[in-house]
Amino acid sequence: MKILILGGDGYLGWPTAMFFSKLGHDVKIIDNFIKKKIENEEGIKPLFSQVPLMERVKLWNKNINKPISFVVGDLLNHRLLYDVLDEFKPETIIHYAEQPSAPYSMKGRDACFFTQHNNVLGTINLLFGIKKHCPDVHLIKLGTMGEYGTPNIDIEEGWLEINHKGRSDRVLYPKKPGSFYHLSKVHDTNNIEFACRIWGTRCTDLNQGCVYGLETMESKMDPGLSTSFHYDHVFGTVINRFICQSVIGQDLTVYGNGTQTRGYLNIIDTLNCVNIATNNPAKVGEFRVFNQYTETLSINDIANNIIYAANELGIKTKSKNLENPRVEQENHYYKPKNENLLNLGLKPTLINDNVLPDMIKIAINNKEKILKDSILPTIKWKI
Amino acid sequence: MKILILGGDGYLGWPTAMFFSKLGHDVKIIDNFIKKKIENEEGIKPLFSQVPLMERVKLWNKNINKPISFVVGDLLNHRLLYDVLDEFKPETIIHYAEQPSAPYSMKGRDACFFTQHNNVLGTINLLFGIKKHCPDVHLIKLGTMGEYGTPNIDIEEGWLEINHKGRSDRVLYPKKPGSFYHLSKVHDTNNIEFACRIWGTRCTDLNQGCVYGLETMESKMDPGLSTSFHYDHVFGTVINRFICQSVIGQDLTVYGNGTQTRGYLNIIDTLNCVNIATNNPAKVGEFRVFNQYTETLSINDIANNIIYAANELGIKTKSKNLENPRVEQENHYYKPKNENLLNLGLKPTLINDNVLPDMIKIAINNKEKILKDSILPTIKWKI
Repeated sequence: MKILILGGDGYLGWPTAMFFSKLGHDVKIIDNFIKKKIENEEGIKPLFSQVPLMERVKLWNKNINKPISFVVGDLLNHRLLYDVLDEFKPETIIHYAEQPSAPYSMKGRDACFFTQHNNVLGTINLLFGIKKHCPDVHLIKLGTMGEYGTPNIDIEEGWLEINHKGRSDRVLYPKKPGSFYHLSKVHDTNNIEFACRIWGTRCTDLNQGCVYGLETMESKMDPGLSTSFHYDHVFGTVINRFICQSVIGQDLTVYGNGTQTRGYLNIIDTLNCVNIATNNPAKVGEFRVFNQYTETLSINDIANNIIYAANELGIKTKSKNLENPRVEQENHYYKPKNENLLNLGLKPTLINDNVLPDMIKIAINNKEKILKDSILPTIKWKI
Repeated sequence: MKILILGGDGYLGWPTAMFFSKLGHDVKIIDNFIKKKIENEEGIKPLFSQVPLMERVKLWNKNINKPISFVVGDLLNHRLLYDVLDEFKPETIIHYAEQPSAPYSMKGRDACFFTQHNNVLGTINLLFGIKKHCPDVHLIKLGTMGEYGTPNIDIEEGWLEINHKGRSDRVLYPKKPGSFYHLSKVHDTNNIEFACRIWGTRCTDLNQGCVYGLETMESKMDPGLSTSFHYDHVFGTVINRFICQSVIGQDLTVYGNGTQTRGYLNIIDTLNCVNIATNNPAKVGEFRVFNQYTETLSINDIANNIIYAANELGIKTKSKNLENPRVEQENHYYKPKNENLLNLGLKPTLINDNVLPDMIKIAINNKEKILKDSILPTIKWKI
């Protein structure tokens, strides 16, 4: 199958490209390297210095039948995008090409404007490109569980059967996102659902939880194939941050009282979920949402898990509470559904399936490279 | 009160500016004239040639104590916007500054991109400008009833008390907009609600129905003070189109079977509603929605009303059905609420309160100027 991966240089995009390439698919990547640009702006970098995409692709292609190809380009450049769609004629598009940091989007006007401009208008270009050049393609769009916020009712998968004053309807699940980044994903959801409704576009929107983990079957084949591992306050998710803090002797910095609960999944499961969606495409005109996470954990749960796993490896660490830089609910109800992917065969890897020791060992082996000043939050929601 | 009107050269912006100026308020206008630019692109123009804003403001200021001031500028130019907010320090901002045509937004990629870029990112700049320079200002944002679409349940005012599996929450009313223009308004709603929640911004979102009518108390003072009257397929709403068709001998072109029902209001009531919102501001951190329409009518109701009113003036006309260029439901349920503004004192002017004969007479007096080819729809939702 011809698979186009937008944002194919990213934390998830690159492992996804290798994964589908190894399965024998014809994979093409587009990336504009904006994440690398933001790394420079913010003075952060991933734990390992990554091989540049061009070299990484060469390294990968040495041992594979159908080489991965790539295009340096931006979805905001609609002519370039249209050319790629017209020439490659993808059957599946996996869309990771968005500015992915909530804190960055809250930094100020410029960063917020950039985030919504890049994410929302890039996706608008994609929708028109699909309509013109490959209307039958299956679009797999990465959304986020953060679109829902933390409502006081159960979180369904994208849609909600609603009963109101004796009448009923099926509506997009009401959203309460917690940052301008998360808002950009909600705008995308609304724009894409409309394209499906009006033009017959086919879309699976994967509302993904926080992803952790580093290695995949493919990345293990050569150290030069590694994906990026961020532990900083801009791109690093909480598990990565806590692991790096544990190995450099920093207390694990819990924002607020640590009761904030979210969905999490291992990077291995991201690949499995995207594969399941690819093999079970949405129908013509269908806007389908899968909640893509395997377990819900509070910040305190995560801290306790990491304290325990580090202790087993001989590292004593503890957590401490920081004033929450974000505006978010604590002590909240959280019950999201994730049956769609499980029903299609997902076998979850959970955080206690011996995942943390391996991650901690990698952090130990690279502890000299950790930039200690890049972990504590400097961006506040209220400023 | 210091009132800043964004989009103050528009169909509603200009009458609003005169209205508040006459009441003794200190009024400043910003406009970027993009609607005039689109008129040229599309080969359309309003029924009357309008006096340019600069001259119109001079004419108005002759007989008024506090002159209206104006700035030519674009909300996408955040430095200009910030300067105006910092220097003028408005107490109320009335935000009409958006590309207002649903058909235009559906014309193709360029027009869609322009619409969401202008509307969503202009409003992002405004939110950051308010936070920085006038955080206590009351933002009155013009939304649209079209954000809701035509759900099979009653339409509440912006928020919905939801019961689901034995639990309850108050959520933003789920939206199902019918064009990329309407989507831009939904994106605005979501961004603004977040700003209220996080920063304490104060906002009244007026979800307005289709506005009809031409003259206001102020515009009647001098023909040079008229607002724009569009009857074309891009900016003209159905009432204006049908009135112009009736006087030039065209059948009234009903899209689809004509059962599509929407909320409508007279331009006089728009001014009254905005005044009510101004005098009863939202609280700190409150995101409040008022559904701003006075009656619901189907396309067939409107056609029949205009056929009757034209007949009384000696004009025989009839309707005919066109294949619907839009993708929208017919024979649908439609029961929106509008109690908030009524409870605050709105006294509706209804379509049968002798409004149509006056509009038809104006059209008769200007029938030679009507561009017959600009009325039939050329933009289709599905292309």
